[in-house]
Amino acid sequence: MKRVLLTIAYDGTNYHGWQVQPNGITVQECMQNALEKLLGQKPSFTGCSRTDAGVHARQFCCHLDCDEAFPENAFLKGLNSILPCDIAVKEYREVASDFHARYDAKGKNYVYRFFESQITDPFLSRYALRVERKLDIEKMDAFCKTLVGTHDFLPFSSSGRSVTDTVRTVTECSMITDDGLPALSISANGFLYNMVRIIVGTALFVSNGALPVECAKDIFESAKRENAGDTAPAHGLFLNKVFY
Amino acid sequence: MKRVLLTIAYDGTNYHGWQVQPNGITVQECMQNALEKLLGQKPSFTGCSRTDAGVHARQFCCHLDCDEAFPENAFLKGLNSILPCDIAVKEYREVASDFHARYDAKGKNYVYRFFESQITDPFLSRYALRVERKLDIEKMDAFCKTLVGTHDFLPFSSSGRSVTDTVRTVTECSMITDDGLPALSISANGFLYNMVRIIVGTALFVSNGALPVECAKDIFESAKRENAGDTAPAHGLFLNKVFY
Repeated sequence: MKRVLLTIAYDGTNYHGWQVQPNGITVQECMQNALEKLLGQKPSFTGCSRTDAGVHARQFCCHLDCDEAFPENAFLKGLNSILPCDIAVKEYREVASDFHARYDAKGKNYVYRFFESQITDPFLSRYALRVERKLDIEKMDAFCKTLVGTHDFLPFSSSGRSVTDTVRTVTECSMITDDGLPALSISANGFLYNMVRIIVGTALFVSNGALPVECAKDIFESAKRENAGDTAPAHGLFLNKVFY
Repeated sequence: MKRVLLTIAYDGTNYHGWQVQPNGITVQECMQNALEKLLGQKPSFTGCSRTDAGVHARQFCCHLDCDEAFPENAFLKGLNSILPCDIAVKEYREVASDFHARYDAKGKNYVYRFFESQITDPFLSRYALRVERKLDIEKMDAFCKTLVGTHDFLPFSSSGRSVTDTVRTVTECSMITDDGLPALSISANGFLYNMVRIIVGTALFVSNGALPVECAKDIFESAKRENAGDTAPAHGLFLNKVFY
């Protein structure tokens, strides 16, 4: 048995997230079907995390068990020729047989992109949140910095997934420029359900003055979801990097 | 009666081109439905040209006749809120009542984008042609330059549309960088059916050595479509600018 790490990228617009579910097509299901065609048998593979419906990934990792190793190029060409054009396998790498895509992930980086415009843009509308009011990048960045560290992120999460430990360590959070667009970048050792999208929604409240720059302290202390901002839409969000 | 010039942009991936046709949804049909909703009556409007299925437009113009003028912002907001998110109206401008979006167009600029990669990219695959072999930009650019001027572009066109005069004047043709990607840019006073895509296909033949850099002269002289290169796929092509 060989275990391999596959790095994939996908445009999440047309998918109900990563994980197989009964009510819509998912990235995992497409991967499963493509791998089954390539390998001639039901594949055994595990993703690094789940992503929500509509969220994109520039780097999503999963490990796959194969009877034998493949030549990298043949595997990539073969699998990519079967997959739909909004999912791509970028890298194939043999790893130790006890490597685990999910449990060995030390952290992840997400990027959430905005574009400031009164009018929609057909080439950006799938990949960035349009905001009509100019963003106050300085305020948003100052808010981001207050999230760095180890906190109970319960108020920055949606219920709906059963997690008992809601403490996470944010190692980096700041406003950056991503391919010419303003974006919020956040790295942590783990993320709760909707955590990035609620942090982004809160940063937008800070930008337009509905919440003060220093609001995170009060929100953490209150431990109440309703004190944070709205959940920002999925389509601006990219899983950008997985750290091993 | 007021005549207004609308500038629109669209991601052509999901459309059977601009012009209304029985076998698939088109951009014109979407515009028609949205304008009818906004105006409360069947709109009278005319596009600057046709684009093929899958071709994108950063700037496509059409003129529209209205009983009365609208405030620009209200018109743009209203229409964009009805249109699907892959079509956007960017500009609304009153023009003279004899202005004609098609007949008054002095020329157009098209851009055809490439990306060089062994592997597909889900964020580029809708908007650029993937080429596995490195492009010879210098050769392609030299070929482009040989097209500038007034020529009978018959051999660089597909049959299927009835045009009697196949002479066009190319005012600019060169390799450029478009948003970080290599691209072929071409401006002319008019374009024949598939003309840009056949020029791009021929440029790719020149890049990989299947045709010499100076091939255009022989192709023009032969006046035979089969002496030019293949028709490049639609998805790399953008109508970039309309000149009035």
